[in-house]
Amino acid sequence: MAVTGPPSPATPTPTPTVTPQETAPIGNPIFARIRIANSSDVPHLHKLMYQHAASQRLTHIFSSTESSLSATLFNSPPFQSFTVFLLEVSPTPFPDGPVGCHPPITRIVNLDLPIVDPELKEFASGGEAVVVGFVLFFPNYGLFLGKTGFYIEGLYVRECYRKKGFGKMLLSAVAAQAVKMGHGKLDWCVLGWNANAFGFYKKMGAQVFEEVKMCRLTSDALQACESFS
Amino acid sequence: MAVTGPPSPATPTPTPTVTPQETAPIGNPIFARIRIANSSDVPHLHKLMYQHAASQRLTHIFSSTESSLSATLFNSPPFQSFTVFLLEVSPTPFPDGPVGCHPPITRIVNLDLPIVDPELKEFASGGEAVVVGFVLFFPNYGLFLGKTGFYIEGLYVRECYRKKGFGKMLLSAVAAQAVKMGHGKLDWCVLGWNANAFGFYKKMGAQVFEEVKMCRLTSDALQACESFS
Repeated sequence: MAVTGPPSPATPTPTPTVTPQETAPIGNPIFARIRIANSSDVPHLHKLMYQHAASQRLTHIFSSTESSLSATLFNSPPFQSFTVFLLEVSPTPFPDGPVGCHPPITRIVNLDLPIVDPELKEFASGGEAVVVGFVLFFPNYGLFLGKTGFYIEGLYVRECYRKKGFGKMLLSAVAAQAVKMGHGKLDWCVLGWNANAFGFYKKMGAQVFEEVKMCRLTSDALQACESFS
Repeated sequence: MAVTGPPSPATPTPTPTVTPQETAPIGNPIFARIRIANSSDVPHLHKLMYQHAASQRLTHIFSSTESSLSATLFNSPPFQSFTVFLLEVSPTPFPDGPVGCHPPITRIVNLDLPIVDPELKEFASGGEAVVVGFVLFFPNYGLFLGKTGFYIEGLYVRECYRKKGFGKMLLSAVAAQAVKMGHGKLDWCVLGWNANAFGFYKKMGAQVFEEVKMCRLTSDALQACESFS
């Protein structure tokens, strides 16, 4: 049986400083936008996912490719299956108007100091915008609760943008969509050693199920299991 | 914040004795069939789910109703979203022919002793057939693996039918569908105290991720989180 690593946990940003309303900027303002990712975002997404794996010390099991992302994401209407929210920032306001079928969420973030982004060129996404992070989620089901929900498979914010509320902005965007669709829960996984993540999620009111263990069948073991049927 | 219990884990049957082929029956034969559940199965499904919660010591958080099941399941084509396989047995062969869009999986199980089912009437499902168990699953995503899969939200076999291979038959049916659809993994959760379940799953070649912790936002905490967005 091939051995793979654990599920990819979410990486939060503990200190929210994003303004909930679009008020007049003070200090060092930056414009943030969350929109649904599409196939043209795959190169950026793939880089972000690799960085996410590195932050979880799991690059040894990272086998996602741009091709696998293109083939597996974007095949269903948003929110019905695998969905990616992409977070971008820009020193100037984003143009008005829809981006795909879901209206983007925009905010102004007031920073104490301007952000120095060493990967500005690599993550440039048109105009002055730059890709900062993502969250990948899909519908799930609570059998005992009798409720539908979303499972967050991964949430990531690039290092130089952390502790500024962008992680909370991404998590909140998923929560808002869940509430809008009548879902009753959000689930996700965290690695046990990630104390920062636990602190952030507990602050957000999340329960942590210490007793629950995740199991997985892949590769040869999956094939062996199906051959019985 | 309202407190709910952990995700519903799967309950396995450790000793498979189901014949992989439909050979001539010996001893005490019983005919088994796995088919896709539909809305007419909801009363049986709801009873099975309550028993499942009881077996996990989680009836205090069981809030699923027949109405919630009818409203949340059966809204999408099988395997694209929430899907339930129902397991039935009968002392006589099941009629040939399709049941819905997915061909049923049938087996003959040779038992040492006939099963005495104290709930035969309650779980009767037409002719001499009786409902024995279920598995509820839906598509999920492996971000680092770059692969789609299935997540098994619950697997249950009624007590008098355990240790006869029916749990393995249900798990194998999901694995077979996963392989058929090109999925790369099966995931599920188990409660830490359930040693029988761990033994069964490890025997099936499953990995157990000790380091991974499940987190959940529900009710007031979910509302509070979305209000930021």
